[in-house]
Amino acid sequence: MNRVAPQLAASLEQELVAIVGAEHLRWPGEVGAPLSRDTTPKVEAARALVFPGSTEEVQALVRLANRERVPLWPCSRGRNWGYGGNAPAQAGALVVSLERMNRVHVVDEALAYAEIEPGVSYRQLRQHLEESSSSLWTDCTDGPPEGSVIGNALDRGVGETPYGDHFGQLCGLEVVLPDGTLFHSGGGEPGNCRTWHTHRWGTGPHLDGLFSQGNFGIVTKAGIWLMPRPEAFQSYFFELAEGASLYELIDVIRSLALAGTVRTNIHLINAVVTASLLARHREIAAGAVIEERELDAFRRRHGIAPWTFGGGLYGSKGEVAAQRRALKRALGRLGRLRFLDDRSAALVGGAVQRLAAMPENSILRRLGAGVLRLGSGKSLQMLESVPHFHGIQKGIPTEHFVRHAYFKHPGERPDRDVNPARDGCGLMWVAPVAPASGEEVRALLELTRPIFARFGFEHYVAMILQNPRTMIVLMSIFFDKAQAEEVEQAQALYEALCAATGEAGYPQYRTGVAYMDRILARAPVFRDFADTLKAAADPNLILAPGRYGLGRWTSE
Amino acid sequence: MNRVAPQLAASLEQELVAIVGAEHLRWPGEVGAPLSRDTTPKVEAARALVFPGSTEEVQALVRLANRERVPLWPCSRGRNWGYGGNAPAQAGALVVSLERMNRVHVVDEALAYAEIEPGVSYRQLRQHLEESSSSLWTDCTDGPPEGSVIGNALDRGVGETPYGDHFGQLCGLEVVLPDGTLFHSGGGEPGNCRTWHTHRWGTGPHLDGLFSQGNFGIVTKAGIWLMPRPEAFQSYFFELAEGASLYELIDVIRSLALAGTVRTNIHLINAVVTASLLARHREIAAGAVIEERELDAFRRRHGIAPWTFGGGLYGSKGEVAAQRRALKRALGRLGRLRFLDDRSAALVGGAVQRLAAMPENSILRRLGAGVLRLGSGKSLQMLESVPHFHGIQKGIPTEHFVRHAYFKHPGERPDRDVNPARDGCGLMWVAPVAPASGEEVRALLELTRPIFARFGFEHYVAMILQNPRTMIVLMSIFFDKAQAEEVEQAQALYEALCAATGEAGYPQYRTGVAYMDRILARAPVFRDFADTLKAAADPNLILAPGRYGLGRWTSE
Repeated sequence: MNRVAPQLAASLEQELVAIVGAEHLRWPGEVGAPLSRDTTPKVEAARALVFPGSTEEVQALVRLANRERVPLWPCSRGRNWGYGGNAPAQAGALVVSLERMNRVHVVDEALAYAEIEPGVSYRQLRQHLEESSSSLWTDCTDGPPEGSVIGNALDRGVGETPYGDHFGQLCGLEVVLPDGTLFHSGGGEPGNCRTWHTHRWGTGPHLDGLFSQGNFGIVTKAGIWLMPRPEAFQSYFFELAEGASLYELIDVIRSLALAGTVRTNIHLINAVVTASLLARHREIAAGAVIEERELDAFRRRHGIAPWTFGGGLYGSKGEVAAQRRALKRALGRLGRLRFLDDRSAALVGGAVQRLAAMPENSILRRLGAGVLRLGSGKSLQMLESVPHFHGIQKGIPTEHFVRHAYFKHPGERPDRDVNPARDGCGLMWVAPVAPASGEEVRALLELTRPIFARFGFEHYVAMILQNPRTMIVLMSIFFDKAQAEEVEQAQALYEALCAATGEAGYPQYRTGVAYMDRILARAPVFRDFADTLKAAADPNLILAPGRYGLGRWTSE
Repeated sequence: MNRVAPQLAASLEQELVAIVGAEHLRWPGEVGAPLSRDTTPKVEAARALVFPGSTEEVQALVRLANRERVPLWPCSRGRNWGYGGNAPAQAGALVVSLERMNRVHVVDEALAYAEIEPGVSYRQLRQHLEESSSSLWTDCTDGPPEGSVIGNALDRGVGETPYGDHFGQLCGLEVVLPDGTLFHSGGGEPGNCRTWHTHRWGTGPHLDGLFSQGNFGIVTKAGIWLMPRPEAFQSYFFELAEGASLYELIDVIRSLALAGTVRTNIHLINAVVTASLLARHREIAAGAVIEERELDAFRRRHGIAPWTFGGGLYGSKGEVAAQRRALKRALGRLGRLRFLDDRSAALVGGAVQRLAAMPENSILRRLGAGVLRLGSGKSLQMLESVPHFHGIQKGIPTEHFVRHAYFKHPGERPDRDVNPARDGCGLMWVAPVAPASGEEVRALLELTRPIFARFGFEHYVAMILQNPRTMIVLMSIFFDKAQAEEVEQAQALYEALCAATGEAGYPQYRTGVAYMDRILARAPVFRDFADTLKAAADPNLILAPGRYGLGRWTSE
């Protein structure tokens, strides 16, 4: 086993400078803020931050790290907020940020893919396609537009359109292996393979999975499949009726997804989620926790249903119309279903924008808001989300939904340049998965609800359909980082949730770096086999030691 | 490096008997035929065939093999005809056939999956579902109904319905690792994971890919996703008009698949493929090769288009109708498109069956055939395929299409119990992949056509859409095993095709065991990394040495 060296030797510093240039290195203490940042309570310190500009520089860094036994912690753009940002699993690693490697190498219009580097963000890729008049759409998440497309995919993030299984859309990876060798997945070495970015499994064993939620290499380039703009598109928005069964709804959603009518990773959210987007915790609750009657009052004020989900319909005009009818037939009796096309979404968006620009108490604004309320049953704040919601179903990224991270933040909430890690917001994600069945989800919610209550937090639940058979039951823990006791309670809640859901057989689809040493504890055979492979691929354990619990450095 | 021991020690024999029982072992010379059989020319000899009945027996075999350094060659049911049947890549391996392990453990109607063992065949699974009045459909291939569902998936075979990416439908594997340890993929150890068969990627690195086209373990159980019976179903059948462009058609198919209208792995076949199904080579050709005018005459006689493909439409009634309109709009100008529902398929099937039962030259039969020909433009033999074609779009397996393997066989062609390996048929598959674009496919066909001609074989081409962006350009080489020179030519053609397509950058989606030592030769970095992992997982190289070129035993 290796031991983490306490600091960088002077000669190592010089070598790093020689590889990337002094302007692409950050040292602790150089700036006011720590090098690694996140919204989670525990953020391990990086030894330094290094920003390579090319695959060759990444190879040189990896070779140097092997020679000097320095652990590297690669991240794409460090926006994995709520899971770890750009922080390493173990203190003292050299964080390798790939944000300078942000070239879009290829966009193939006919075969509908791009070849990009890990520094490419959702916003950049979208803009690139729009500026080149491409007919292709990106997917996005409802998270930060500045997040890395490849980084999110390798962490197995989930998006919004039919291309929302992000890891599933990667095809053909260029990887720097832990010994510095340049590797191409699927056997697609340059010049020898015309199907590198199109053929799903390549030839021979399919090794791509080693590089997702793993630490078998640094992905420096990848093919990503893109969606051709459909002939017709509509978004829809469903609100569960008061008193109707959430669990019945989940069974209906599963059937629609299995039938291919619902083709997206729909997000089914409770009122706490909506509240966190519309307001601040202190505007809703008088005390430390939002009481049920406070949430009810807030819901009435804004017209928030107990549970809400939305999605998109894509296809020929006839196919979209047929999907619409199938949705209505299946969902009609459970609540209210509304559809939006580009025109109606723009109309709502324009009206809301004009009203929101008026002074808060002006007669015109109140009149306009009243008219909109009559038509929709929603407050102006609720309607502000409409164009953003409609847009992400087309893969257009927005900062709008990221603002919920400021729910318990004592300071201001920005409308632009939203950066909860920089601003010191407190937020952690817990993300167990359950089979997409009403009974299974009921059991998981009934297990976790009292735990949230016990620790004094609201039960924030956003369920994401990972595939037609699986629901990610994403739960968020908000806290004020300035309140030491609240932070402690938040951590205790996090630990309790992980323990209880793990014990009950609900694994996590993705986890925070602070919990990675325990994530596979319930699967020791799996972990040991992965660790055997890791040790063969990376005998010095220099690459992301501790990522998903593999290849940890231990003190002697 | 290890050396293959020349024969089994007597003590080893006894231990094998102790593990599986003498009745579940086959020795060379015991039966008339060799232990390992296939339609390929080169079939390496197995040392013995062993049929374990349980996971525990597989574990015991693996531990014994490690102790005694005996290579094992696992196969599920040994029906991988044209790629290797149940033959090992290197002579002398102990072939472990899993056909006795054929239990269906679970069928989950709501979550639409089954948990099965590798001995379960397509026919058995379908029958199991039908007998339990399940609302779930299996997928199938157009190959042998007795083929293994898991075996085909692990070799990355492709089927017929929207669940045709067979490896992509596996979720949650139970695996005996090369040291005998029992492993569960995705971290889904029993009792600790409720999403083992539903959650696509599990937690941590996704290792399932190691077990497909690889030799990192013996899969003894797997979850497989099944398709709920759709509200509406139709099959369709498209024939390219004489003189219309195949390459334009390919671009249209890709667009339809990218748009989600074509959701199946459609098979686009040329007239040689159809001919091989309808007749014997000697019935068409006067000489060694079918001349163009002979093929033309045959096509006219039976009403065969230059290129044909078919598929299925699945969804609500409205969705199927809309898909139908979208297909017509896109394909109408390129050829003739026809649709079949269960009723019309049964009508055609019934009429054909009644006519076929009549004496060949009876007036009634000739009259009936004439009427059908007038309506369809097809011969009676062509129409015989209709119900089989319609059925496989619903995942109903049939032996009907397997009969083409007898194309050059001198003996009789059975209608039932079709077994080309047993009957000594000669057939090899070559399966390069190309991007699904007209230009790419044109280049590949223009590359391979003259090679077929040079060696004196017909250019048999069945293109399978592996995914919307990739076409498998499957080519078959038929030969008469009794003709030594023809066998030699067939092998030379096979080698020439592999070399030329590899050189031009078209990898193979799957390959025969006789070619596995060379399949990854053009991707040495990929092969070496996979081999490093293999050596860590299987230090004695006892598990399927040489599969896809990995972990080969070499003589000292």
